[in-house]
Amino acid sequence: MELSYDEIKLFIEKPFAFVERMGIQALELKPGYVKLAAPLEGNGNHIGSMYAGALFTLAEMPAGALYLTTFDVTRYYPIVKEVHIRFRRPARTDITAAISMTAEQAREIQKVVEQEGKADFTLEIELLDAGGTVVAVGKGVYQLRPMAEISV
Amino acid sequence: MELSYDEIKLFIEKPFAFVERMGIQALELKPGYVKLAAPLEGNGNHIGSMYAGALFTLAEMPAGALYLTTFDVTRYYPIVKEVHIRFRRPARTDITAAISMTAEQAREIQKVVEQEGKADFTLEIELLDAGGTVVAVGKGVYQLRPMAEISV
Repeated sequence: MELSYDEIKLFIEKPFAFVERMGIQALELKPGYVKLAAPLEGNGNHIGSMYAGALFTLAEMPAGALYLTTFDVTRYYPIVKEVHIRFRRPARTDITAAISMTAEQAREIQKVVEQEGKADFTLEIELLDAGGTVVAVGKGVYQLRPMAEISV
Repeated sequence: MELSYDEIKLFIEKPFAFVERMGIQALELKPGYVKLAAPLEGNGNHIGSMYAGALFTLAEMPAGALYLTTFDVTRYYPIVKEVHIRFRRPARTDITAAISMTAEQAREIQKVVEQEGKADFTLEIELLDAGGTVVAVGKGVYQLRPMAEISV
Protein backbone atom coordinates (compact mmCIF):
# COMPACT_ATOMS: atom_id res chain seq x y z
CA MET A 1 0.00 0.00 0.00
CA GLU A 2 1.28 3.39 -0.98
CA LEU A 3 -0.49 6.46 0.31
CA SER A 4 -0.87 9.32 -2.14
CA TYR A 5 -0.06 12.89 -1.18
CA ASP A 6 -3.76 13.74 -1.19
CA GLU A 7 -4.60 10.78 1.03
CA ILE A 8 -1.94 11.74 3.57
CA LYS A 9 -3.08 15.37 3.48
CA LEU A 10 -6.65 14.29 4.19
CA PHE A 11 -5.53 11.98 7.02
CA ILE A 12 -3.70 14.89 8.66
CA GLU A 13 -6.19 17.69 8.13
CA LYS A 14 -9.36 15.67 8.72
CA PRO A 15 -8.42 12.50 10.58
CA PHE A 16 -11.28 12.93 13.07
CA ALA A 17 -13.55 15.72 14.30
CA PHE A 18 -11.29 17.17 17.01
CA VAL A 19 -8.50 18.04 14.59
CA GLU A 20 -10.84 18.94 11.73
CA ARG A 21 -12.57 21.49 13.98
CA MET A 22 -9.20 23.16 14.58
CA GLY A 23 -8.62 23.75 10.89
CA ILE A 24 -5.12 22.28 10.84
CA GLN A 25 -3.45 22.57 7.47
CA ALA A 26 -0.68 20.38 6.08
CA LEU A 27 1.70 22.84 4.42
CA GLU A 28 4.43 20.35 3.52
CA LEU A 29 4.38 16.58 3.54
CA LYS A 30 7.33 14.57 2.33
CA PRO A 31 9.42 11.64 3.53
CA GLY A 32 11.43 12.86 6.50
CA TYR A 33 9.79 16.29 6.76
CA VAL A 34 6.37 17.68 7.56
CA LYS A 35 5.10 21.16 8.30
CA LEU A 36 1.64 21.90 9.67
CA ALA A 37 -0.22 25.11 10.52
CA ALA A 38 -3.11 26.06 12.78
CA PRO A 39 -5.15 29.24 12.41
CA LEU A 40 -5.54 31.58 15.37
CA GLU A 41 -9.15 32.09 14.35
CA GLY A 42 -11.35 29.59 16.12
CA ASN A 43 -8.51 28.47 18.39
CA GLY A 44 -8.06 31.52 20.59
CA ASN A 45 -8.45 31.68 24.34
CA HIS A 46 -10.22 34.29 26.47
CA ILE A 47 -7.42 36.81 25.91
CA GLY A 48 -7.15 36.27 22.17
CA SER A 49 -3.98 34.20 21.89
CA MET A 50 -4.00 30.57 20.80
CA TYR A 51 -5.26 28.27 23.55
CA ALA A 52 -2.79 25.82 25.11
CA GLY A 53 -4.83 22.83 23.95
CA ALA A 54 -4.67 23.99 20.34
CA LEU A 55 -0.91 24.52 20.61
CA PHE A 56 -0.58 21.05 22.11
CA THR A 57 -2.51 19.55 19.22
CA LEU A 58 -0.35 21.37 16.68
CA ALA A 59 2.74 20.09 18.51
CA GLU A 60 1.45 16.51 18.58
CA MET A 61 -0.10 16.03 15.12
CA PRO A 62 3.14 16.39 13.10
CA ALA A 63 4.35 13.10 14.57
CA GLY A 64 1.41 11.36 12.92
CA ALA A 65 2.11 13.16 9.67
CA LEU A 66 5.79 12.17 9.80
CA TYR A 67 4.76 8.57 10.44
CA LEU A 68 2.56 8.61 7.33
CA THR A 69 5.24 10.08 5.06
CA THR A 70 8.29 8.33 6.48
CA PHE A 71 7.54 4.92 7.99
CA ASP A 72 6.21 1.75 6.40
CA VAL A 73 2.53 2.22 7.24
CA THR A 74 1.70 -1.32 6.10
CA ARG A 75 3.89 -2.80 8.84
CA TYR A 76 4.03 -0.35 11.74
CA TYR A 77 1.83 2.06 13.65
CA PRO A 78 2.72 4.63 16.31
CA ILE A 79 1.27 5.51 19.69
CA VAL A 80 2.02 8.62 21.72
CA LYS A 81 3.35 7.82 25.19
CA GLU A 82 3.97 11.24 26.65
CA VAL A 83 4.33 14.88 25.66
CA HIS A 84 5.94 17.80 27.38
CA ILE A 85 5.09 21.26 26.13
CA ARG A 86 6.51 24.53 27.34
CA PHE A 87 4.68 27.74 26.51
CA ARG A 88 7.21 30.50 25.93
CA ARG A 89 5.33 33.41 24.38
CA PRO A 90 1.68 34.28 23.70
CA ALA A 91 0.70 32.87 20.28
CA ARG A 92 -0.96 35.85 18.66
CA THR A 93 -0.90 34.78 14.98
CA ASP A 94 -1.46 31.61 12.98
CA ILE A 95 1.15 29.10 14.13
CA THR A 96 3.32 26.60 12.24
CA ALA A 97 5.20 23.52 13.38
CA ALA A 98 7.67 21.35 11.46
CA ILE A 99 9.61 18.20 12.27
CA SER A 100 12.09 16.10 10.40
CA MET A 101 13.72 12.70 10.60
CA THR A 102 16.43 11.23 8.43
CA ALA A 103 15.82 8.04 6.43
CA GLU A 104 18.59 6.47 8.50
CA GLN A 105 16.78 7.31 11.76
CA ALA A 106 13.52 5.89 10.43
CA ARG A 107 15.27 2.69 9.29
CA GLU A 108 16.92 2.32 12.68
CA ILE A 109 13.60 2.72 14.53
CA GLN A 110 11.92 0.15 12.28
CA LYS A 111 14.87 -2.21 12.80
CA VAL A 112 14.45 -1.98 16.57
CA VAL A 113 10.74 -2.84 16.20
CA GLU A 114 11.69 -5.95 14.22
CA GLN A 115 14.25 -6.98 16.82
CA GLU A 116 12.47 -6.04 20.03
CA GLY A 117 8.79 -5.84 19.14
CA LYS A 118 8.59 -2.08 19.71
CA ALA A 119 10.72 1.04 19.58
CA ASP A 120 10.47 4.29 21.52
CA PHE A 121 11.60 7.46 19.83
CA THR A 122 11.53 11.12 20.75
CA LEU A 123 10.50 14.05 18.57
CA GLU A 124 11.18 17.66 19.49
CA ILE A 125 9.26 20.45 17.86
CA GLU A 126 9.13 24.22 17.89
CA LEU A 127 5.93 26.17 17.30
CA LEU A 128 6.53 29.41 15.45
CA ASP A 129 4.38 32.48 15.03
CA ALA A 130 4.15 34.48 11.81
CA GLY A 131 7.21 36.50 12.81
CA GLY A 132 9.33 33.41 13.43
CA THR A 133 9.20 33.67 17.23
CA VAL A 134 9.14 30.36 19.07
CA VAL A 135 5.88 30.44 21.04
CA ALA A 136 6.06 26.89 22.39
CA VAL A 137 8.42 23.92 22.44
CA GLY A 138 7.19 20.35 22.49
CA LYS A 139 8.89 17.05 23.17
CA GLY A 140 6.98 13.86 22.53
CA VAL A 141 7.86 10.26 23.23
CA TYR A 142 6.30 7.92 20.71
CA GLN A 143 6.41 4.18 20.27
CA LEU A 144 6.40 2.37 16.96
CA ARG A 145 4.76 -1.05 17.03
CA PRO A 146 4.31 -3.86 14.52
CA MET A 147 0.95 -3.67 12.74
CA ALA A 148 0.02 -7.23 13.78
CA GLU A 149 -0.52 -6.02 17.34
CA ILE A 150 -3.57 -4.07 16.23
CA SER A 151 -5.58 -7.28 16.00
CA VAL A 152 -4.35 -8.64 19.34
CA MET B 1 -16.23 41.00 42.61
CA GLU B 2 -17.67 37.64 43.51
CA LEU B 3 -18.33 35.14 40.77
CA SER B 4 -21.49 33.10 41.07
CA TYR B 5 -21.51 29.35 40.59
CA ASP B 6 -23.30 29.76 37.27
CA GLU B 7 -20.79 32.34 36.06
CA ILE B 8 -17.87 30.08 36.90
CA LYS B 9 -19.59 27.12 35.26
CA LEU B 10 -20.09 29.14 32.09
CA PHE B 11 -16.46 30.35 32.12
CA ILE B 12 -15.28 26.74 32.33
CA GLU B 13 -17.66 25.06 29.90
CA LYS B 14 -17.80 27.85 27.32
CA PRO B 15 -14.80 30.10 27.83
CA PHE B 16 -13.98 30.14 24.11
CA ALA B 17 -14.75 28.07 21.02
CA PHE B 18 -12.00 25.47 21.35
CA VAL B 19 -13.21 24.24 24.74
CA GLU B 20 -16.89 24.72 23.96
CA ARG B 21 -16.51 22.49 20.89
CA MET B 22 -15.17 19.72 23.13
CA GLY B 23 -18.28 19.73 25.30
CA ILE B 24 -16.39 19.95 28.59
CA GLN B 25 -18.69 19.80 31.60
CA ALA B 26 -18.03 21.20 35.06
CA LEU B 27 -19.27 18.48 37.41
CA GLU B 28 -18.10 20.08 40.67
CA LEU B 29 -16.88 23.58 41.36
CA LYS B 30 -16.04 24.72 44.85
CA PRO B 31 -13.22 26.48 46.62
CA GLY B 32 -10.26 24.11 46.65
CA TYR B 33 -11.83 21.43 44.47
CA VAL B 34 -13.01 21.10 40.88
CA LYS B 35 -14.02 18.14 38.75
CA LEU B 36 -14.52 18.33 34.99
CA ALA B 37 -15.60 15.80 32.37
CA ALA B 38 -15.16 15.41 28.62
CA PRO B 39 -17.35 13.21 26.43
CA LEU B 40 -15.74 10.59 24.21
CA GLU B 41 -18.26 11.49 21.51
CA GLY B 42 -16.83 14.19 19.29
CA ASN B 43 -13.37 13.84 20.83
CA GLY B 44 -12.30 10.44 19.53
CA ASN B 45 -9.30 9.67 17.35
CA HIS B 46 -9.09 7.42 14.30
CA ILE B 47 -9.25 4.28 16.46
CA GLY B 48 -12.16 5.46 18.61
CA SER B 49 -10.41 6.37 21.86
CA MET B 50 -10.16 9.96 23.09
CA TYR B 51 -7.57 11.95 21.14
CA ALA B 52 -4.44 13.10 22.97
CA GLY B 53 -5.29 16.77 22.39
CA ALA B 54 -8.67 16.36 24.04
CA LEU B 55 -7.09 14.58 27.01
CA PHE B 56 -4.54 17.38 27.24
CA THR B 57 -7.31 19.98 27.30
CA LEU B 58 -9.18 18.09 30.02
CA ALA B 59 -5.93 17.90 32.01
CA GLU B 60 -5.23 21.61 31.58
CA MET B 61 -8.65 23.24 32.04
CA PRO B 62 -9.17 22.26 35.70
CA ALA B 63 -6.36 24.61 36.67
CA GLY B 64 -8.39 27.50 35.30
CA ALA B 65 -11.48 26.26 37.12
CA LEU B 66 -9.53 25.94 40.38
CA TYR B 67 -8.25 29.48 39.90
CA LEU B 68 -11.80 30.77 39.53
CA THR B 69 -13.11 28.99 42.62
CA THR B 70 -10.08 29.34 44.87
CA PHE B 71 -8.00 32.43 44.17
CA ASP B 72 -8.87 36.10 44.43
CA VAL B 73 -9.81 36.71 40.79
CA THR B 74 -9.98 40.48 41.34
CA ARG B 75 -6.27 40.60 42.16
CA TYR B 76 -4.53 37.73 40.39
CA TYR B 77 -4.58 35.83 37.12
CA PRO B 78 -2.80 32.63 36.10
CA ILE B 79 -0.79 31.61 33.05
CA VAL B 80 0.24 28.10 32.08
CA LYS B 81 4.01 27.72 31.70
CA GLU B 82 4.40 24.05 30.86
CA VAL B 83 2.51 20.79 30.93
CA HIS B 84 3.69 17.21 30.89
CA ILE B 85 1.15 14.54 30.08
CA ARG B 86 1.69 10.81 30.07
CA PHE B 87 -0.82 8.61 28.28
CA ARG B 88 -1.17 5.35 30.17
CA ARG B 89 -4.21 3.56 28.75
CA PRO B 90 -6.57 4.10 25.81
CA ALA B 91 -9.42 6.40 26.90
CA ARG B 92 -12.47 4.50 25.68
CA THR B 93 -15.22 6.19 27.72
CA ASP B 94 -16.12 9.71 28.84
CA ILE B 95 -13.25 10.95 31.01
CA THR B 96 -13.17 12.92 34.26
CA ALA B 97 -10.42 14.93 35.92
CA ALA B 98 -10.34 16.52 39.37
CA ILE B 99 -7.83 18.62 41.25
CA SER B 100 -7.74 20.14 44.68
CA MET B 101 -5.78 22.72 46.63
CA THR B 102 -6.05 23.62 50.29
CA ALA B 103 -6.96 27.14 51.38
CA GLU B 104 -3.54 27.29 53.03
CA GLN B 105 -1.79 26.45 49.75
CA ALA B 106 -3.79 29.11 47.91
CA ARG B 107 -3.00 31.71 50.58
CA GLU B 108 0.69 30.84 50.40
CA ILE B 109 0.76 31.19 46.59
CA GLN B 110 -0.99 34.58 46.77
CA LYS B 111 1.42 35.68 49.49
CA VAL B 112 4.39 34.87 47.26
CA VAL B 113 2.83 36.95 44.46
CA GLU B 114 2.54 39.90 46.83
CA GLN B 115 6.14 39.51 47.96
CA GLU B 116 7.85 38.56 44.70
CA GLY B 117 5.52 39.77 41.97
CA LYS B 118 4.69 36.25 40.76
CA ALA B 119 4.44 32.69 42.04
CA ASP B 120 4.93 29.39 40.24
CA PHE B 121 2.91 26.41 41.39
CA THR B 122 2.49 22.87 40.17
CA LEU B 123 -0.74 20.93 39.77
CA GLU B 124 -0.85 17.20 39.19
CA ILE B 125 -3.94 15.56 37.80
CA GLU B 126 -5.20 12.10 36.95
CA LEU B 127 -7.64 11.47 34.12
CA LEU B 128 -10.03 8.63 34.88
CA ASP B 129 -12.26 6.58 32.64
CA ALA B 130 -15.76 5.44 33.62
CA GLY B 131 -14.32 2.38 35.34
CA GLY B 132 -11.91 4.43 37.46
CA THR B 133 -8.82 3.48 35.46
CA VAL B 134 -6.19 6.20 35.16
CA VAL B 135 -5.87 6.79 31.41
CA ALA B 136 -3.48 9.75 31.62
CA VAL B 137 -1.51 11.71 34.19
CA GLY B 138 -0.81 15.42 33.81
CA LYS B 139 1.55 17.77 35.59
CA GLY B 140 1.26 21.48 34.89
CA VAL B 141 3.38 24.38 36.00
CA TYR B 142 1.35 27.55 36.36
CA GLN B 143 2.23 31.05 37.40
CA LEU B 144 0.01 33.40 39.35
CA ARG B 145 0.50 37.08 38.60
CA PRO B 146 -0.91 40.31 39.98
CA MET B 147 -3.84 41.61 37.93
CA ALA B 148 -2.18 44.97 37.33
CA GLU B 149 0.23 43.37 34.90
CA ILE B 150 -2.59 42.76 32.46
CA SER B 151 -2.56 46.40 31.44
CA VAL B 152 1.23 46.57 31.06
